[in-house]
Amino acid sequence: MLILICNVGSTSLKFKLYTMPDTHILCEAKIERVGSANGIYSFRNNLNGAEESREGLNIPGYSEGINLFLKDLVDSGKGAIRTIDQVDAIGFKTVIAKGYYGVHELSDEVIAAMEAYIKVAPAHNPPYIEAIRKFKEILPDKLFVGVFETAFHKTIPQERRMYSIPYEWYENYDIQRLGYHGASHGYISRQVEKRIGKQYKLISCHLGGSGSLCAVLDGKSVDSSFGFSPQTGIPHANRAGDIDANIIPFLLGQGLTVEEIFKGIDKNGGLLGISGVSNDLRDIEEAAAQGNERAKLAIDVYADSIIKYIGSFYAVLGGLDYLVFTGGIGENSSVIRQKICSRLTHLGVELDEAGNVEGPKERVISADTSKVKVCIIPTNEEEGIAQDIFHNYAV
Amino acid sequence: MLILICNVGSTSLKFKLYTMPDTHILCEAKIERVGSANGIYSFRNNLNGAEESREGLNIPGYSEGINLFLKDLVDSGKGAIRTIDQVDAIGFKTVIAKGYYGVHELSDEVIAAMEAYIKVAPAHNPPYIEAIRKFKEILPDKLFVGVFETAFHKTIPQERRMYSIPYEWYENYDIQRLGYHGASHGYISRQVEKRIGKQYKLISCHLGGSGSLCAVLDGKSVDSSFGFSPQTGIPHANRAGDIDANIIPFLLGQGLTVEEIFKGIDKNGGLLGISGVSNDLRDIEEAAAQGNERAKLAIDVYADSIIKYIGSFYAVLGGLDYLVFTGGIGENSSVIRQKICSRLTHLGVELDEAGNVEGPKERVISADTSKVKVCIIPTNEEEGIAQDIFHNYAV
Repeated sequence: MLILICNVGSTSLKFKLYTMPDTHILCEAKIERVGSANGIYSFRNNLNGAEESREGLNIPGYSEGINLFLKDLVDSGKGAIRTIDQVDAIGFKTVIAKGYYGVHELSDEVIAAMEAYIKVAPAHNPPYIEAIRKFKEILPDKLFVGVFETAFHKTIPQERRMYSIPYEWYENYDIQRLGYHGASHGYISRQVEKRIGKQYKLISCHLGGSGSLCAVLDGKSVDSSFGFSPQTGIPHANRAGDIDANIIPFLLGQGLTVEEIFKGIDKNGGLLGISGVSNDLRDIEEAAAQGNERAKLAIDVYADSIIKYIGSFYAVLGGLDYLVFTGGIGENSSVIRQKICSRLTHLGVELDEAGNVEGPKERVISADTSKVKVCIIPTNEEEGIAQDIFHNYAV
Repeated sequence: MLILICNVGSTSLKFKLYTMPDTHILCEAKIERVGSANGIYSFRNNLNGAEESREGLNIPGYSEGINLFLKDLVDSGKGAIRTIDQVDAIGFKTVIAKGYYGVHELSDEVIAAMEAYIKVAPAHNPPYIEAIRKFKEILPDKLFVGVFETAFHKTIPQERRMYSIPYEWYENYDIQRLGYHGASHGYISRQVEKRIGKQYKLISCHLGGSGSLCAVLDGKSVDSSFGFSPQTGIPHANRAGDIDANIIPFLLGQGLTVEEIFKGIDKNGGLLGISGVSNDLRDIEEAAAQGNERAKLAIDVYADSIIKYIGSFYAVLGGLDYLVFTGGIGENSSVIRQKICSRLTHLGVELDEAGNVEGPKERVISADTSKVKVCIIPTNEEEGIAQDIFHNYAV
């Protein structure tokens, strides 16, 4: 089975063509600065090693970007396949749609349900909706599948999904804790399963520009730090994570508008808001090393909020076998991992200080005597999505 | 030192006159249905056993209620003291004032700071402000002290107080996690200290119409489930506790007004919102026993959210010596305590099932072999306040 995964950013498109179930990547491509006359394009065929990159391209919209890639994909020289008919499905890491929280064919109905929840994921849903529509115009007969970021979390028990809000808000608007980053946590969970079999207590820490923790019991998500929207949980690069909702009427009373408040929470909060330095942890760590107090504070707030979620998930899981770090920060910041692990000795975590700082990308970073195995596992969301589609639509 | 503690409700007043430092209560009184012509009044002098109760009284406002009590307090027959001059201070369990988070003399400035934060504690600040003003009109020369509910939590470290919001919101509006129920958690902490000395890791669970957990390390609060406002943390009787702030713009998009949304969150949420049965856990437990599914769900949500906070505080504290239940629910619901403790065996909690169900009001309910000592300790917020005032203003 051949599955093409398309990753949509607000001004970018990434493609990977997988053969399933062996998860080989036949070819991949990346288009940046979509919407400009100065686009960047790179393409690689892993079968014959053909590579190409171009700059200064006129890519006014997603349609032009998609066509650019599809042309190369079936090109007689550099192409990886002969005809687009060979592709069985086109998959997307969609975020959220009202009422559709699993792996779904992207029918007009499902796309409408994504539109209905634009307010829940204002940064994510609009570009996905646009790119999917354009793609479907170009290839109207293909199977388009959305692996929603909420899919892996469908196993979270109801008492943990419920907010204690008026019950009719749950009934009428489906307001509940949904969880996101499902493609990543699902992938990590399967990697752990490969190592120790089907029974395990895992806390997966996906720390990146957007960050979340997931509690996994025997392969099933039982808790997520994300709530109804992807604006909750631990601090993100620019988004606030968990806050007191009563800050909103308070700030309205101080004369701020709803727009100003949510710009603060969703764009000018997070690591950027506290540090005032950058939304990138690398810059913040550098500033902290140079003595910047707010940068130090941002790092401490970040680590502390992760520690608290780990404790909460430890309670929920009834113990802990595996603690995995993934995502840009999780894979690369030894400072953050050290700050977290050094305060978890009473949960059975014993860090290998040297192994934490250096080693191969994927590695165990706990001491041999550690009760909890601590690992870095680079995430692979595209592979996670391809696997989910294969399991649901294998032909 | 004689300290009169006044507890202010929206339609009630309670008084206790303490001698300090021995914390004897010389007399106490309670006035209900303030603001009606059908007031209820009870008074008890613990020195001579004089008691009195009356109904159907005309008590149009706090002034009349306060005068009613003060008259009896110095009455030559039933009174506990000869003259009001003997009272050294009048203390209040005030909730929050901008910039004043400790134990403060209730100057006009401090009262104005309470007014500035009415939006943060809309249910609590208005009646306190009114009652304090009336009291000061009646006794203009007395020392009036507010022991703010945030006072005990001033030791929470900064990285745990900070929201990852724009830093200027913290600077300009003092938005940070403050913690409440300080009088109760402080009292519990001192009771634990009496038993085992100054070094201990305690999680104090004050579960009542309003509920919060507090992590106490060696007598100092290091975390609270309450945030900026007392509308956060675990579900309360009517208030939602922790929710996703992005529910607000989402519901605004569905056509609800800000007022409707916060009425839902602050009045029609909590245990009432989920269960649809009642805001009183006793009614909900009864309905659950009769098979009501939403009542069962409310109990499960409540217990689960407490378990998650306990796990989070266990991580923060680096272990746990004492787990204390207090407040109306904490002291009386063996069902809730059982549901919580049975899921904490991996934290070293081993419940004495029989002891949990029956015994004296104050008791140990863990098994002798339990690593964590689990207790019920009835709270005594008035005594906590009297102690705080004594320590700050002893003459």
